[in-house]
Amino acid sequence: MSTEKFTFCQFGAGRIGAIHAGNIAASERAELRYVVDVNEDAARALTDKCGGRPASMEEALADPAIDAVLIASPTDTHANLIEAAALAGKAIFCEKPIDLDIARVDHAADIIAQTGVVALIAFNRRFDPTLGGLGEAVRRGDVGEVETVIITSRDPAPPPIDYITVSGGLFLDMMIHDFDMAHWILGEVPHEVFARGAVLVDPEIGKAGDVDTAVVTLTTKSGKMCHISNSRRSVYGYDQRIEAFGSKGMIQAGNRNANSLTSWTSDTISHDKPLHFFLERYEAAYRNEMSHFLDCLEGKATPMVGMEEGRVALVLGLAAKQSMASGLPVKIT
Amino acid sequence: MSTEKFTFCQFGAGRIGAIHAGNIAASERAELRYVVDVNEDAARALTDKCGGRPASMEEALADPAIDAVLIASPTDTHANLIEAAALAGKAIFCEKPIDLDIARVDHAADIIAQTGVVALIAFNRRFDPTLGGLGEAVRRGDVGEVETVIITSRDPAPPPIDYITVSGGLFLDMMIHDFDMAHWILGEVPHEVFARGAVLVDPEIGKAGDVDTAVVTLTTKSGKMCHISNSRRSVYGYDQRIEAFGSKGMIQAGNRNANSLTSWTSDTISHDKPLHFFLERYEAAYRNEMSHFLDCLEGKATPMVGMEEGRVALVLGLAAKQSMASGLPVKIT
Amino acid sequence: MSTEKFTFCQFGAGRIGAIHAGNIAASERAELRYVVDVNEDAARALTDKCGGRPASMEEALADPAIDAVLIASPTDTHANLIEAAALAGKAIFCEKPIDLDIARVDHAADIIAQTGVVALIAFNRRFDPTLGGLGEAVRRGDVGEVETVIITSRDPAPPPIDYITVSGGLFLDMMIHDFDMAHWILGEVPHEVFARGAVLVDPEIGKAGDVDTAVVTLTTKSGKMCHISNSRRSVYGYDQRIEAFGSKGMIQAGNRNANSLTSWTSDTISHDKPLHFFLERYEAAYRNEMSHFLDCLEGKATPMVGMEEGRVALVLGLAAKQSMASGLPVKIT
Amino acid sequence: MSTEKFTFCQFGAGRIGAIHAGNIAASERAELRYVVDVNEDAARALTDKCGGRPASMEEALADPAIDAVLIASPTDTHANLIEAAALAGKAIFCEKPIDLDIARVDHAADIIAQTGVVALIAFNRRFDPTLGGLGEAVRRGDVGEVETVIITSRDPAPPPIDYITVSGGLFLDMMIHDFDMAHWILGEVPHEVFARGAVLVDPEIGKAGDVDTAVVTLTTKSGKMCHISNSRRSVYGYDQRIEAFGSKGMIQAGNRNANSLTSWTSDTISHDKPLHFFLERYEAAYRNEMSHFLDCLEGKATPMVGMEEGRVALVLGLAAKQSMASGLPVKIT
Repeated sequence: MSTEKFTFCQFGAGRIGAIHAGNIAASERAELRYVVDVNEDAARALTDKCGGRPASMEEALADPAIDAVLIASPTDTHANLIEAAALAGKAIFCEKPIDLDIARVDHAADIIAQTGVVALIAFNRRFDPTLGGLGEAVRRGDVGEVETVIITSRDPAPPPIDYITVSGGLFLDMMIHDFDMAHWILGEVPHEVFARGAVLVDPEIGKAGDVDTAVVTLTTKSGKMCHISNSRRSVYGYDQRIEAFGSKGMIQAGNRNANSLTSWTSDTISHDKPLHFFLERYEAAYRNEMSHFLDCLEGKATPMVGMEEGRVALVLGLAAKQSMASGLPVKIT
Repeated sequence: MSTEKFTFCQFGAGRIGAIHAGNIAASERAELRYVVDVNEDAARALTDKCGGRPASMEEALADPAIDAVLIASPTDTHANLIEAAALAGKAIFCEKPIDLDIARVDHAADIIAQTGVVALIAFNRRFDPTLGGLGEAVRRGDVGEVETVIITSRDPAPPPIDYITVSGGLFLDMMIHDFDMAHWILGEVPHEVFARGAVLVDPEIGKAGDVDTAVVTLTTKSGKMCHISNSRRSVYGYDQRIEAFGSKGMIQAGNRNANSLTSWTSDTISHDKPLHFFLERYEAAYRNEMSHFLDCLEGKATPMVGMEEGRVALVLGLAAKQSMASGLPVKIT
Repeated sequence: MSTEKFTFCQFGAGRIGAIHAGNIAASERAELRYVVDVNEDAARALTDKCGGRPASMEEALADPAIDAVLIASPTDTHANLIEAAALAGKAIFCEKPIDLDIARVDHAADIIAQTGVVALIAFNRRFDPTLGGLGEAVRRGDVGEVETVIITSRDPAPPPIDYITVSGGLFLDMMIHDFDMAHWILGEVPHEVFARGAVLVDPEIGKAGDVDTAVVTLTTKSGKMCHISNSRRSVYGYDQRIEAFGSKGMIQAGNRNANSLTSWTSDTISHDKPLHFFLERYEAAYRNEMSHFLDCLEGKATPMVGMEEGRVALVLGLAAKQSMASGLPVKIT
Repeated sequence: MSTEKFTFCQFGAGRIGAIHAGNIAASERAELRYVVDVNEDAARALTDKCGGRPASMEEALADPAIDAVLIASPTDTHANLIEAAALAGKAIFCEKPIDLDIARVDHAADIIAQTGVVALIAFNRRFDPTLGGLGEAVRRGDVGEVETVIITSRDPAPPPIDYITVSGGLFLDMMIHDFDMAHWILGEVPHEVFARGAVLVDPEIGKAGDVDTAVVTLTTKSGKMCHISNSRRSVYGYDQRIEAFGSKGMIQAGNRNANSLTSWTSDTISHDKPLHFFLERYEAAYRNEMSHFLDCLEGKATPMVGMEEGRVALVLGLAAKQSMASGLPVKIT
């Protein structure tokens, strides 16, 4: 079978892991052989559903039949797993972020470079028909020279406070997606970051040292500008929009909902709210992401988001935190 | 002044008359000299606001300074006024319908033809930026050969029962607009009419011998088809939509509202309702209609809706009533 | 395994069969054991992908492990397969239409009734989040008492002429979906059908005895009205819309496209076209339909579309053909 | 007549002056008596059309019949005219900005305060059904506590270079509207301004010392944030949008176009572009603004935008210029 299908070992059997394992199982080009998780019950439940069996990291990486690893474990394990997998010669599909420390990212990137394995950093929005479609349209020149980008990203509700304390905070766990999209759409690494934020949603978030509402301005050397705004709470649901404006026009990526119904009553004309959260909203993106990775494994494509892009998003996130703290714009060197 | 501006006598000082008189007053090319109405107080109120003074029909038509008459009086006076005005050599702007009797329409049309005066039958929708824009787009071939037309027309609330008893009923006072639009958009006189209707809104309408909800199918010799649906009551307001489908695509005319606001709440995404009724919805159409008539007076245009078009709409309305009564399709000869 | 998952035999390995087999394979509650098709290569290709193996009808129906049959074979085999499956005690998931002959449908329905097996007639639109959502909204009273329904259904391109000659024609292979939706939304069996049609797209369709463009008016005893329009060709793609108007408002079901992008250029503001055709447009509907059938097998639901609904849609289609031929409205008794 | 209608003297007979004079002439509550303009031909042309006659400032302000002045002359004459009119006891309708110099604004404001005359600073967007409707909705709490505001404002094409050299530049002639809207919607005077800009449209603008593309971040003491982006060129026309996000939801103000047509072709689904520029887009706003001013004259309302609001917008514009120059955020004291 491994001569026909790419064989995966997956690290992490949580919520996002379940999505990826499901996409491996559903693909005609892939199969799941191992799931590694400290919670063995979770690993077992996932393999019961998607194939394969629980295993240890050592066993999995030692198995020559394994073609690729999918890293969906906690962030602080990513860099280690990337390095171990690369040294074992496995292709790598890794959830964002690579790590919260630039030096750690650079070390992992060096090993990827030395081993030459395929490595995809899974920024899901690039693979979404709407948001990814916008990025592709801008890259191929549909709006001419891009001049201003406006990104809005709001979650339906804040994550648990526990999560915030380990995630690096809003700029690193949430806005990092927007930084990656900005980088891609602008076509340049921004050279300045200015951030402002506040605690407007939940005081507990402030006590944990983070903000829950934030805005950022990115500028590039060539004068392009990008505005990003984030909120940890949106009563109308997940709000994921981008617009790119340029010399030949504008392209907008709007929200998606589950149907195309419009109701006309004596009060208003109304539609249903957007799809609830990322699992629903990016269902197609996750599928496309896996398909792209399999294309890379087959040599038909090269990863559209690699270690370098993962590093840029992290650099921007760290600069935003610094700007937020200092109150001043921060230059990217 | 009459050498510079076209001078009008208006018949009728009611609600629709107030609109037209206002447009005459606001135009740099027109002025109002007389208003004729059996209710002299109403005539006086209108001339106080829009210029001119109340007068009798005889006085007004005898005044050689009068260039044009605007007929916005009750339907049963239209044909007489058209004939008198034509014989007096005045240009004619007449509210629809010309009359409810085909023989009477034909007689008036003969006199128009003999006198050669300019005559515009005021089907306002042809002059609306949206609905008229659709008609023009179809006539210039934007959808290729038109094949199917779907017209929806719903009033916010039924008229007084009194009105229904003199208006000729739904097919002649309301759907007649849709028949005119269908005739224009199809580019052919339909050769068959099939109508169905019911009393679903107010039993009093049924007692008055009319229906309050109706659907009609028109077909043309070349095989084009048109569906029209009407209701006397729409809780979300005035609903005026048309779509024309053809070999090269479709064009849709949607409703209008007074703003472009969208509200996103924990329940829904919503917009305001459409503009309430014809006075608001067709404000621009009434202005454009007057402007077109003045263009005709200046010889820059010929009436885009004349006696013939008014006659066709009436023929279709009468056929619909007959079909409704017989339960069978009615041929137009 | 059959104690845990419902085991299927599928008849038909064509395009629509591939969809259903894929949904069986993807479900945690179902598995495919046999595929029966006169084209054994097609059956083999499908079982290679979705599980199970090719078999004969006799073998499949004789296997006590089979819980359900899925009938996606040509229309003229449906009634026989329904009867054979029912007599073998298998639950039935059958593609529409049941048959083109009412007597044949009634005979199959009798056997279903006698055997008491679960039977679902697969009108996919009822299970679509948008169109099915509209039906549910109307049934629960969101628009008050429904008064007028307008259904638009246009295919991107005509089917092969061969298909038209066996399918029963536009009213039975295409508009039959709209008849079922109308029946559901109106909440009554229409008592009169008036149809008009023409050959406007391809003269070959006319030579084959069919029309390619058609409109139908349905009326119910209580005075509700429904307009349906169909075309075999729509240059902008698959056009599937419904609106239901009633005493408390209106609900509209619009088209779907693959993204939410809007492009603003010096010429226009534009969106992508709708999803191409039924395989893309109704992907979710097919999944939901299978899920509903499995709910029925588990006793959690009863089929929302059964033999009776399949019969009504056929009756309306045959009446439309008769009306088209006679030029007169046809009463449903 | 002056006992019945408010009598106006207008300063300035240019493009925007023509709009206001037309609205005075069209109102039943107002009449135009004088137009003052150094270009007497322009003054004459306007009075020929809208009533009254050309006059000098001295004559006009000395006429006790004059109730109100409308100031639509060049910016550098505003403060002088405001002061002269206030001292003459006339009510004041003044185009924005009051002046480019804060001290000059303060002096004029003092005189207004001393004389107690009615003074309206004509920020037209506050009176627009869409943008003004958004402001009112936010002020009455429709989105709960407002948290983030995003304002997009793009002109179809740059003004003449001459204009830029006297207008104060993009932040003072264009973004000043957005500053006023931000101030109103946020419900607080921002306490920090951060601006970035670039010359991306026309190098001549850069040579004139201005930018043609700019973004600004405003923050308030309570932590609210606002992003504004401007461009001097938008190929798809005038782009005027705002969204306000808060604890209970979001409200968006979108663009307007002249019709509600949608075209479906083999390529795309498309709409017409937005209304071309401010004269078309804000036609209703200008009418409403005059109506509001007349309400103020009648004592039914107090000016919704006065000297203080005009001053805040100027302060924000000057701070943005300073931030742009220094590269640092600027505090508002």
